[in-house]
Amino acid sequence: MSEPHDRTIQYGNATGGDVVVALDVGGTGIKCGLVRPDGVAVHAERHPTEAARGPAAVVDTILDVAAGLTGMARAGGLTPVALGIAVPGVVDEARGVAVWSANVGFRDVPLRDLAVARLGLPATLGHDVRAGGIAEARLGAGRGAGHVLFVAIGTGIAAAHVVDGAANIGAHGAAGEFGHILVRPDGPRCGCGRPGCLEAVASAAAVGRRYQELAGTPGTAAEVAERAAAGEPVAVRVWQEAVEALADGLATAQALFDVATVVVGGGLAQAGARLLDPLRAALRERVTFHREPRLVAAALGDEAGCLGAALLALDAHGGVSTTMEAR
Amino acid sequence: MSEPHDRTIQYGNATGGDVVVALDVGGTGIKCGLVRPDGVAVHAERHPTEAARGPAAVVDTILDVAAGLTGMARAGGLTPVALGIAVPGVVDEARGVAVWSANVGFRDVPLRDLAVARLGLPATLGHDVRAGGIAEARLGAGRGAGHVLFVAIGTGIAAAHVVDGAANIGAHGAAGEFGHILVRPDGPRCGCGRPGCLEAVASAAAVGRRYQELAGTPGTAAEVAERAAAGEPVAVRVWQEAVEALADGLATAQALFDVATVVVGGGLAQAGARLLDPLRAALRERVTFHREPRLVAAALGDEAGCLGAALLALDAHGGVSTTMEAR
Repeated sequence: MSEPHDRTIQYGNATGGDVVVALDVGGTGIKCGLVRPDGVAVHAERHPTEAARGPAAVVDTILDVAAGLTGMARAGGLTPVALGIAVPGVVDEARGVAVWSANVGFRDVPLRDLAVARLGLPATLGHDVRAGGIAEARLGAGRGAGHVLFVAIGTGIAAAHVVDGAANIGAHGAAGEFGHILVRPDGPRCGCGRPGCLEAVASAAAVGRRYQELAGTPGTAAEVAERAAAGEPVAVRVWQEAVEALADGLATAQALFDVATVVVGGGLAQAGARLLDPLRAALRERVTFHREPRLVAAALGDEAGCLGAALLALDAHGGVSTTMEAR
Repeated sequence: MSEPHDRTIQYGNATGGDVVVALDVGGTGIKCGLVRPDGVAVHAERHPTEAARGPAAVVDTILDVAAGLTGMARAGGLTPVALGIAVPGVVDEARGVAVWSANVGFRDVPLRDLAVARLGLPATLGHDVRAGGIAEARLGAGRGAGHVLFVAIGTGIAAAHVVDGAANIGAHGAAGEFGHILVRPDGPRCGCGRPGCLEAVASAAAVGRRYQELAGTPGTAAEVAERAAAGEPVAVRVWQEAVEALADGLATAQALFDVATVVVGGGLAQAGARLLDPLRAALRERVTFHREPRLVAAALGDEAGCLGAALLALDAHGGVSTTMEAR
């Protein structure tokens, strides 16, 4: 087991009581911790995923980390009541199977049952963006909105449609692929094979590619945002193109979902007002007979997936307080 | 009250028992009847809407028709237990208010409370396409699918996303505006004011307009479908353009919703295999890592809205059997 990078969010006054062991497994790192039934994280850790070791080794790490957290909780006088794990890709939440995840290397891994066998705790497997979405909708920037679209814009783009605190999973565990909606039929080809996907035009990776293409020098999305704010013409143009594509995508999503609040998270959202202000203006132009949703930055940062994994476990195994808060 | 155009769907063996009075109010006509808790219509009527008379007169007609059906049920030994009304446009289902409906002329009409006051029955107000969607999902072509997208393609285009028998309404009663998602940024301007909406390219009205534009002679969508099947080059091109735009729209919807079944209804769906076969092929081309949904024609025809209005009333006021069937 890799060395934990300890980082405690809040111990509060908890000296006893129930906690959920929660893990958000990404391609690079595992964010994990102990979360109370009211949604407060009382302990947080980070571990590297080291996906290159192969799926069996990653599963071992996940189970070791979960066992370590369970032991730590008990040693501290807390009672671990359930385990929640969030993973990226296609997740069959009903069967608890990580169906397909390119960046973690999973293919049909029955992670829930493996966790139950190892830990002897009831366990729930969820999707990382949908977990982040329910956390933002219940505990973060979408709190009180009822109908929320959580959009994560990073290397890729994905979303979760959350109504009354629950995310739509889809018939095959694949709902929310906001990065793969059509916005530019004549645009660049997406990694998925189709031309014109939103992700191929407006992800952080796409912004970097486009800048390199037009400026002839490299630039990350964060650098492009900064240079655009400073008035550099190529950066202004690249940023504007991304914002307009995102606004087109959000207008399409709003036509279908009619949410009250759009919560924008992920790496690109760290541009803050440099993204949200022009995006809000561009979305306003596109909303005709529809109601314009409130457009806000995510509030939970990269803890959202871990908190959401805990909420999913609480929903499935007896937690009620955070669910009630959402209504 | 206008003369009813009597048309009985099925009397079955019902000589007693509960029924719901159900009305589907459209810009041209009112489809209505008496529906048993198991979803079987035991009586159906049609009346003209005559929307040009103004909203007050239309409301009077709706209430007169509902009162007539209630009286007929009682005279036949049936017990009317609830009233369900479906209307087009933006509908606030929670408050029972027809917020905005261009083709019926409604603007903030508290139709549910007016109906309760007039009839003394519990009443429910719903949206026509969402009502049609839940009927197709529970009783029609989407039966057993769990996650269904019902798409109505006629003069306009709209959809209902139905999960476990319930349609998403949205935060403002405006979810499902599938006609107003972006598919052709350089395409014709839509009636909503934005360029490139699906409705501006692929509705029955758009197909007719495009044919007139390219052929110089008029043609309805049905005629274009027929001429395309006969190999007329302009008709082939126009039909192909519409099919490709619809496939782009469905691919976007599938990325977001991940449904098991797409049910296609509305006037354009009467083209049958001439629409569904090429549309299925074009959608298959566009589905990459996603699962391809089953694409089927609607089964309930233009009775879907009336049956759905009955289901909404049963959901709200004690009907259980059709809800259970959907799970």
